[in-house]
Formats: sequence, C-alpha cells, structure tokens
Amino acid sequence: MRPDRIEVVLVRPSRPGNVAAACRAMKNMGIERLTLVGRSADFVGQEARPLAYGAWDLLDSVRTADSLGDAVAGCCFVAATTGRPGESRFTPRSFFGAADGLVGAGRLGLVFGPEATGLTNAELALCHAHITIPTHAAHSSLNLAQAVAIVAYEARASGGEGDAESRDEPARATAGELEAAIQELGEGLEGIGYLNASSPGPILAELRRLLARAAPTRREVTLLRGMARQVCWAARRVAGSPLADA
Amino acid sequence: MRPDRIEVVLVRPSRPGNVAAACRAMKNMGIERLTLVGRSADFVGQEARPLAYGAWDLLDSVRTADSLGDAVAGCCFVAATTGRPGESRFTPRSFFGAADGLVGAGRLGLVFGPEATGLTNAELALCHAHITIPTHAAHSSLNLAQAVAIVAYEARASGGEGDAESRDEPARATAGELEAAIQELGEGLEGIGYLNASSPGPILAELRRLLARAAPTRREVTLLRGMARQVCWAARRVAGSPLADA
Repeated sequence: MRPDRIEVVLVRPSRPGNVAAACRAMKNMGIERLTLVGRSADFVGQEARPLAYGAWDLLDSVRTADSLGDAVAGCCFVAATTGRPGESRFTPRSFFGAADGLVGAGRLGLVFGPEATGLTNAELALCHAHITIPTHAAHSSLNLAQAVAIVAYEARASGGEGDAESRDEPARATAGELEAAIQELGEGLEGIGYLNASSPGPILAELRRLLARAAPTRREVTLLRGMARQVCWAARRVAGSPLADA
Repeated sequence: MRPDRIEVVLVRPSRPGNVAAACRAMKNMGIERLTLVGRSADFVGQEARPLAYGAWDLLDSVRTADSLGDAVAGCCFVAATTGRPGESRFTPRSFFGAADGLVGAGRLGLVFGPEATGLTNAELALCHAHITIPTHAAHSSLNLAQAVAIVAYEARASGGEGDAESRDEPARATAGELEAAIQELGEGLEGIGYLNASSPGPILAELRRLLARAAPTRREVTLLRGMARQVCWAARRVAGSPLADA
C-alpha cells in the first residue's frame, strides 16, 4: 500500500497530544492526510504542538468531519482498528499483505477510535475491515499515537511502494458509492422479508464487509444498484411486504 | 523471537515522558525488562508516570547501568536501532525474520540511543546488529517511544509467540459452495426480471468475479444463499415472473 494513498481518520480523540504525536508518526511513514471526526481544526493547541515535531504542515492542513461516514465517503476502502474481540479480525500484517490493489488509484481510510472507549459498534459496522494489533492479552490497551505509528509502519513496511496503481485498472467505487448500493439493497431485502426490519444492521454489516473486500469497481456497484432496485420492485409486488403498493 | 526473551536498553534518554511511554508499548507487546544507561532509577517522575499507563510495575523494576557494555553484558545478542546510514542495516522485519534461534534460552538486547543524537559510534560498534526503521527519507526522525513501539510490535508480529496470523481465520468457502450460491442467486434474479433469461451468463459472471475476489467465508456464502432463496420466494409471488406460482 503506497503511503500517499492512505488517509488517517481519528474519531473523537480526547488528547491533543495524541493527535500531535500521531501526526509525527504519519509523516515519518509518508502519510500526509489526516481527518478529525467530532473535533475542530484547532483541537491541537500550542501546548501539544511540539509533539508533532516536523509534521506541523500536516497538522495545519487537518480536515474535519461531523461523522465517520462523512469522513470516509471519499475513500475506496475503510479499515478500522479495534481492540474489541470479534470475528474476522486482521492483523496489520495480514491486512496490508492482502491490501495491495484494494484501492487502485483511490484512497484507503485508516480509522482509529477514541482513547478510552474505541469506536462504537455502529462505527465499526460502517468499516470494511477490522484490524487488531496483536498484543499481550493482559495489556492490550495501546496508546493512540503508538497504534497509529505501528499501523503506519506496517503499511510502509508491507511495501507496495511501487505500484499496482499506475496500470490501467478500472475505477474503484468509493465508500460513499458502495454505501448507497448497500442501503438500497437493504431496503429491498427488508421488503422481501430477508432482513428483519427491526434489526437489519448486523447482516447488512456482513454484506458490506464482504463486498468491500472485493474492492468493487464503479461498474460493479452500478450492477449491484440495479439488482437492489429490482429487488425493491419485486418487494412492492409481494402481498404483505412493507414495500407493497397500497 | 519470544517477547519475554527481549530486554530493552534506553541509552541516556533525555525525556522522562519518552521512557514512560516506551514502558507502555513494551508491556503491550509482552516485553518486561528495561534497562536505563546513564540515568537513575527515579528518572521518570510523577509528571510523566501516567504515560506508562498499565506498565508501572515495569517502570518500578527498571534496572540501571553506567555503560551500554554493562547493560548488555548478560544478553546473548545485542541489536541497536539507528537512523544513521551505514552498511549492513537490517529493517525490523528482516532482523526478526532472521533472529529466530539467535538467543536460544538467553536474552536479546534491543538498544535505543538518546533522542537528539542517537548512539555514539563506539556504542554502535559494541552491538551485534544494526536495525533501521524504514521511513520517509525527508522525515526520518522518529519519536523514541514510537520507535520502541514499532520494534516491539515487529518482534511480536514476527512470530515465536506462535502466530497471531493463522489463528481465528474463518473457514473459506470452496469454489463449489460459492457457485451453488451464485446459481441460486441467478435463478432468483431471473425470476424478478433483473437478469435476462435468454442470456443471464455475462452479468452472473461479473457477480461471480466480484464475490470470488472477496474470498468469502462459509458463513458469508450461507448468507448469500439465504438471500438468493428469499429472492426466489419473492419472484414466485410476482405476477408474470417465470417463477410465479401457476
């Protein structure tokens, strides 16, 4: 994965010093794009700025977003780091080992949650892959900036520095485009009674991860949307469906 | 390299906060032994102690030595980290990849120099191998604790501990299992008029490539089959559908 394809997203960080220190680590590894979710652009004040040693330009060009969804809408693939146990966790190594070509000429979003609580379940569900840094079981709480340093190091060390990118690869869909297709699919699958209307989230999250892992092209997302629309159409014609014509 | 075989040696660190933060990173990776060269055991005062979150026992049992030679005398092999260019540099990955069996039941010393100046030439010469963390050429100055975090992560990730990677990987579906799901999906999608019954092949082939690229798990293929069956069910209830009940 080329570092210049990576965008780091810090969700509601609580300590300005961690944001500053994360900037330094990103810069060391050649990652230049940072977005803060739920924090203003001047979150890192004078006191913490020295910790961004050499990376002040990165700090000064930080982007902000109100929600994780907004922050990553322009990324082609979104990976979240989490310490919470669960199925299908990648290690940084297994993730970047498999990540080559995942975003083509687009961008990879690397998401880190708040220091104390981590990402919410809804935020984790929005992401396409989950990375857990292997640690000693009894001491798994990593410092935020050190976690950024480790993942950024692994991104760089896993190579890719030369590129699958420049080839004539078809355009990758962005997270926003895929999400629109998934929402439409969800609506149709509820309509035909496959998804439970009261909690469609978990199954939709599994579908999201499955599809994102395939790094779909724009053309493929268009196919998925066509399929979703036709499922909605069928649902409206099934008696008793929530989408049924009145 | 088993983390419990590793001993970190910080030579004349200038910032107590870096020592404390290094302790936290070591503890995360299962490394429990720390030696300070040229600093007293109470170098990390009250102000910096919070940065050693969860690793205070490690901080309280820090060893001290007057010289690097004294510090590493008990180690079987000594590797120094350096940002200074030179011949025969290992990366963390290439070093730990080759380090298995290097110290047997003994200890490996991992040496880090002072923040501003790094190790002296005499100190580098005392070490058995030199490790340089790959960075962006123009921003190679790593924070000391982040450097410790990265090297400790690599020590752990490179195995020994018996591999984090292969554990817990969910079972992959076979091509046959995926194909069964795709055929069922094709039938449903024809039934609701998404696929043209006279030539469903090309679109189905695109779907097959998309899904196969994601290397779906058994569980995910089961989800896809459930979805396909529900689409077939809806199709039978849509008037005019080839699957419609007579």
